Amino acid sequence: MGSSWKDQFADAPDVLKTTPDQTTVVRAGSVFIGGGDFVTMAGPCSVETERQLMETAERVAAAGARVLRGGAFKPRSSPYAFQGLGLAGLKLLAAARERTGLAVVTEVMAAADAPLIAEYADILQIGSRSMENYALLEAAARTGRPILLKRGMVATVADLLRSAQCIASYGNPNVILCERGIRTFETSTRNTFDVGGLTVLKEVCRLPVIADPSHAAGRRSLVPALARSAVAAGADGLIVEVHPHPEEAWSDGEQSLNFSEFGTMMADLAPWCELRAACRYALETVA
Amino acid sequence: MGSSWKDQFADAPDVLKTTPDQTTVVRAGSVFIGGGDFVTMAGPCSVETERQLMETAERVAAAGARVLRGGAFKPRSSPYAFQGLGLAGLKLLAAARERTGLAVVTEVMAAADAPLIAEYADILQIGSRSMENYALLEAAARTGRPILLKRGMVATVADLLRSAQCIASYGNPNVILCERGIRTFETSTRNTFDVGGLTVLKEVCRLPVIADPSHAAGRRSLVPALARSAVAAGADGLIVEVHPHPEEAWSDGEQSLNFSEFGTMMADLAPWCELRAACRYALETVA
Amino acid sequence: MGSSWKDQFADAPDVLKTTPDQTTVVRAGSVFIGGGDFVTMAGPCSVETERQLMETAERVAAAGARVLRGGAFKPRSSPYAFQGLGLAGLKLLAAARERTGLAVVTEVMAAADAPLIAEYADILQIGSRSMENYALLEAAARTGRPILLKRGMVATVADLLRSAQCIASYGNPNVILCERGIRTFETSTRNTFDVGGLTVLKEVCRLPVIADPSHAAGRRSLVPALARSAVAAGADGLIVEVHPHPEEAWSDGEQSLNFSEFGTMMADLAPWCELRAACRYALETVA
Amino acid sequence: MGSSWKDQFADAPDVLKTTPDQTTVVRAGSVFIGGGDFVTMAGPCSVETERQLMETAERVAAAGARVLRGGAFKPRSSPYAFQGLGLAGLKLLAAARERTGLAVVTEVMAAADAPLIAEYADILQIGSRSMENYALLEAAARTGRPILLKRGMVATVADLLRSAQCIASYGNPNVILCERGIRTFETSTRNTFDVGGLTVLKEVCRLPVIADPSHAAGRRSLVPALARSAVAAGADGLIVEVHPHPEEAWSDGEQSLNFSEFGTMMADLAPWCELRAACRYALETVA
Repeated sequence: MGSSWKDQFADAPDVLKTTPDQTTVVRAGSVFIGGGDFVTMAGPCSVETERQLMETAERVAAAGARVLRGGAFKPRSSPYAFQGLGLAGLKLLAAARERTGLAVVTEVMAAADAPLIAEYADILQIGSRSMENYALLEAAARTGRPILLKRGMVATVADLLRSAQCIASYGNPNVILCERGIRTFETSTRNTFDVGGLTVLKEVCRLPVIADPSHAAGRRSLVPALARSAVAAGADGLIVEVHPHPEEAWSDGEQSLNFSEFGTMMADLAPWCELRAACRYALETVA
Repeated sequence: MGSSWKDQFADAPDVLKTTPDQTTVVRAGSVFIGGGDFVTMAGPCSVETERQLMETAERVAAAGARVLRGGAFKPRSSPYAFQGLGLAGLKLLAAARERTGLAVVTEVMAAADAPLIAEYADILQIGSRSMENYALLEAAARTGRPILLKRGMVATVADLLRSAQCIASYGNPNVILCERGIRTFETSTRNTFDVGGLTVLKEVCRLPVIADPSHAAGRRSLVPALARSAVAAGADGLIVEVHPHPEEAWSDGEQSLNFSEFGTMMADLAPWCELRAACRYALETVA
Repeated sequence: MGSSWKDQFADAPDVLKTTPDQTTVVRAGSVFIGGGDFVTMAGPCSVETERQLMETAERVAAAGARVLRGGAFKPRSSPYAFQGLGLAGLKLLAAARERTGLAVVTEVMAAADAPLIAEYADILQIGSRSMENYALLEAAARTGRPILLKRGMVATVADLLRSAQCIASYGNPNVILCERGIRTFETSTRNTFDVGGLTVLKEVCRLPVIADPSHAAGRRSLVPALARSAVAAGADGLIVEVHPHPEEAWSDGEQSLNFSEFGTMMADLAPWCELRAACRYALETVA
Repeated sequence: MGSSWKDQFADAPDVLKTTPDQTTVVRAGSVFIGGGDFVTMAGPCSVETERQLMETAERVAAAGARVLRGGAFKPRSSPYAFQGLGLAGLKLLAAARERTGLAVVTEVMAAADAPLIAEYADILQIGSRSMENYALLEAAARTGRPILLKRGMVATVADLLRSAQCIASYGNPNVILCERGIRTFETSTRNTFDVGGLTVLKEVCRLPVIADPSHAAGRRSLVPALARSAVAAGADGLIVEVHPHPEEAWSDGEQSLNFSEFGTMMADLAPWCELRAACRYALETVA
């Protein structure tokens, strides 16, 4: 890892920094990501019911979230499993945006769904399992919507940047990267949150980078500490799973926060976010 | 990962928390680790010369470090490689302690060396490659000195706790755990710093936990951000490689900070450490 | 790993064995996979030219291959990279089948392409990067063609079986599993060929299992030994990259065999395959 | 992985091949390892009682094993756990050698024990956890006995060769390498048996290489298939756990074969070993 350390990222020229301060600010509705503000995205794993979504939207907005997350199209390994509410889910997300002013991010898992989802969502999420689904990357990129690109479970930082480059190559530079943990031998957490990889991304790449402490931890009690560590490493935001009643969630309940826990986390996080903003230049001091 | 999540740590009963606030405070000379203060250990990978060590000791002390690190016994893969200064190195470390008031931590790699090293060092370090060297754990434990136990490159959190339990079983409860990155497929960092594992340790184990951002990063520019993330996750301290002239270091130069870089990092870190102290209880809010 | 070891595969009930000898024999054209014969699939990474493909088809058929492999649709990370010959490639594959009698396997990477590819290919390949692309699994399954399902780079055996179950759930039981190496910290091979995982698959799953020594090795000199080890572990066949001039291949040249190397490997492999057939019951002796 | 692929092994010059056929034949008593014969080492994880050991020695010898394995010094993570019979165990091993003519291999875990163990054992085993315990490597090397060096759980092939080089550097060229599986995310086997790594070792290194299918599998039913795959990949031998009553073994019972299973495996393995001997040159055909 010497003078040629950066060579490993050479396949992604259009998203690398050419100057230390170069940043891409991604706009989604009225929210700017990567521009200095720390942006939290929150909501349930799946859109389940109108009441569940509206209540969640209002509560996370009140606690300081700027973007509502929620899955509507959820192709699963089994045709008998819950596949998401589909179009009805998109309409609920749009209604929640109306009421709360939150921007909306939702996942697109099939290329054919991209145009429809783009009508309703402000940001299209590409999930970990899809990070190297190039047909999907193209379809999502061509909608013109900002893309939230989650790192694959076994993708290197270089692999992630290559997929970001792919999206940029289709004329869409508005990519938000997301570190969400990688698969290792460790079993006490669901995934290994790679804060070092996040740090590398902030050093070499101009795109905003957010963290997903929920999927990394897999366990609610660990979420706030991972969120703080992401702030400290220079992340531009978070995406967090929140549910009115995690123990009743249709998916990912163990890693979802309830409203009270989310509120406490956001309040506790505030001074850390201020510190991050204040010492912004320090992030690059040594680089 | 449900109600039985903690079962994976069942082999280490004597180091697990029985109440959320239970902590072991480890004393080394006049330094208390795990008692609330954030303690930084710093120094060169290897003790090379008197001038190198004294200069480093004075500079890291001035920047706020409380413990001096430096390798004296370095059995290597090749008999022709530099094996450390041995006893002469220990004497230099002791002299540096005299001059600066820093406590001293140095690695013990062979059971037979433990008693001699214990005469000079305040803390005995067990390196990653030795984490499951039970003969060495016993010999180190029996010296009565505090032990800095580094996580093995491929050890789970449960494995680390099992080795800590081993030391405790020999009548020595004064163990400091150290997260220093694990081996994964990622190549942009030398190791993958497992901030999630550190968080788990703080949740379940009463022992102090420090972080080694130098070995995790393998690359100097990433060290400050990893250090900050460790603070944010609740670490009790750091161990950092510092060298007067990293480019001339006999080992690990690429990941060593020079004095100026270390000083900047410590100054930048101060408000984060304050925040950690202030929101101390918040660390457990959700747990 | 005791009495509940098989519980980890519980999500894939329709592909697990209910008796030790239960096997699914998959038919592709005149080739039967999983029925006792050892079936080799061979050909280039990409269909490049008519001459390249025809020459390869004739030579691999002469050496004993039964199925021709070759990529026609190759969505890439960059829109500027070679994306495959598309329909023209499919027509060349069909022409090669006409001339040689080989069955044809080719990869489908986008759900929208599945029906067209199914018109030309005898077997649809789902690549490693697509193993959890459920929309694609559904589209491929619904064509009714046999599916060659490659294990994801970081997929567990249980994950692979879950994806096979997904295909079966859409009414298509004709799935061939493929072990092609997983991502680990080891760097001397491109991937770590998981012969233990292959053994587990043969023990618990009724579907045929083949091995891809080319992608596992990443290096031509290692391919024959990995092929032999797959035979010895009980694999039902191989898929191997072969190119007239590997050094000029448009992709994966370093791991492709030339005709002479492939011919030698097949001849050397013959007695091992006989032994596998002869001691067939021995495979289950201890189980 | 091109022309410089072999550069990764450059730290181990004295154990690399300088010609394709160069091999080190290691003699232990009357057994020659690496000289063409396939050598099986078998026995219990721990020496427990005289009856257990003698019965096992006689039965594995009758089934074709040439070397008896058994642990006598077993420093454990807990001082309360069974630490092995120590000297009494060594004497039992020597008595079993007397009676059966088997050579003896046993593990040395502490440098201080090496001279004593060398008085009784024909081969000193360095376990996975000790592969980078350089003080131990030196002590074992200096006894002059052949060394069985097991790959660390997370060691690369290059790391393993570096440790072999270390032993050779102390004047002891009689090293037998052992592939025993590496730690990955896969959970259906205890470790991931790296048959590709074994193949690389046979290609680049002159030392004999054996396989440990017991620790790789972690589960008895998988052992025979892994053993066959090791034969096919060109291994020079095996080390296998065998116990009169695995379900009553003090350690590693789940992966131990009983006498009947071991006998069946050895008989089934014979034709594979013959094939390996017959096609010996084919191992290098493509290289």
